[in-house]
Amino acid sequence: MSSGPGVFISFEGPDGGGKSTQVRLLACALARLGYDCVCSFEPGGTPIGRRIREIVLDTKTCGMHGVTEFLLYAADRAQDVHEVIIPAIDEGKVVLADRFVDSSLAYQGHGLCMDIQSVRAVNEIATGGLRPDLTVLLDIDAALGVARARGRGKGRSSDSGDGNCGGDRIEIRMLEFHERVRAAYHEMAEREPARFRRIDVTEKSIEQVHQEVLAIVSRFLEKRGFGKVNSNAHS
Amino acid sequence: MSSGPGVFISFEGPDGGGKSTQVRLLACALARLGYDCVCSFEPGGTPIGRRIREIVLDTKTCGMHGVTEFLLYAADRAQDVHEVIIPAIDEGKVVLADRFVDSSLAYQGHGLCMDIQSVRAVNEIATGGLRPDLTVLLDIDAALGVARARGRGKGRSSDSGDGNCGGDRIEIRMLEFHERVRAAYHEMAEREPARFRRIDVTEKSIEQVHQEVLAIVSRFLEKRGFGKVNSNAHS
Repeated sequence: MSSGPGVFISFEGPDGGGKSTQVRLLACALARLGYDCVCSFEPGGTPIGRRIREIVLDTKTCGMHGVTEFLLYAADRAQDVHEVIIPAIDEGKVVLADRFVDSSLAYQGHGLCMDIQSVRAVNEIATGGLRPDLTVLLDIDAALGVARARGRGKGRSSDSGDGNCGGDRIEIRMLEFHERVRAAYHEMAEREPARFRRIDVTEKSIEQVHQEVLAIVSRFLEKRGFGKVNSNAHS
Repeated sequence: MSSGPGVFISFEGPDGGGKSTQVRLLACALARLGYDCVCSFEPGGTPIGRRIREIVLDTKTCGMHGVTEFLLYAADRAQDVHEVIIPAIDEGKVVLADRFVDSSLAYQGHGLCMDIQSVRAVNEIATGGLRPDLTVLLDIDAALGVARARGRGKGRSSDSGDGNCGGDRIEIRMLEFHERVRAAYHEMAEREPARFRRIDVTEKSIEQVHQEVLAIVSRFLEKRGFGKVNSNAHS
């Protein structure tokens, strides 16, 4: 759990589940309801993070080792946590993160079969042990998710760690990889039911998912007695 | 110990002890003796590492968190290990490294008081557990070392993690910091006498130190039965 007066909510799930869209929609909705929101997008959520991302995605960095890439993304996350997320929590804001440590555990740990303890240890250092107060898992059938991500011409580029070069690396992942990632998310959600809320987005429209997300988050904020900045905000 | 047919030798010690100079002199001497040598300099020993280093040293990256910097240097080391050091060991070469994991433990762990287990864990991941077969500790009085490093207008810039911006960060370190670093090296050398060889360079000329280093390393290579590429090399 975050230690400041704010609230930290992460969005997780396999590719193609619509996390970025839902984070943006939720941020707008919460702002209209009078909450003071900050969004964190990985990778490259800070100027330093963007420079790190440039190195990873540059086709000239062909030959980058998977561990190098993993540590670069961890550095990006460290900067995001200390420059954006923690200060916002300390200021009492609602912080929405499009992916966080669970993504590393699911993708690197389970998907790419990196040593889980190592993935956990590096992330513990990068984040200073920061945990989301609430995690919304946008769950989707792996094959459909990959097809959707392909359809929009981009997929998850963070934490991929496959050492391939150029383009958007996730697009060449095998379905088995995505199945492992999805299974890992299910396992995490089962292990931490108090933190996770799973939404199956497979058959739902963006608006339907948004309404579910908004209901879950509103309930959570109210239960936490979390205040709005401006109670007269246009609702 | 390294696992390949080659030999991995690291040079460690406080700033101003002349590590880079000694690595270069030794590489030349070993080449003349017919050994196939590869040198690894951190940070920025690979093209990817140099790009990482540019981010760290760029004055525009003011506000970089210490943990971000630490992870960026770990990423640099990971690339160096996998692109330069391990392939060279696998090819049966003598690899000379100007600083390795002991530097992180001494500087970040003991000097900057970062959590030692964290420093160790991240380096374990970055290096894949690679250990030097031999470590030459060029020991120097902390105050003299700092003065020497200042005198040549540069000091140790890697792994500094102080969050300061621009210039060469080590130059503004306090003497207490360097004393802690030196004490940490002494402790490591005492704990692993089989790996460490300490040379007190305080009162010695570069040539004197070089002869001592060459004697230690030659003895070590001969004891290991380590072959020369060309026994007719000009001696």
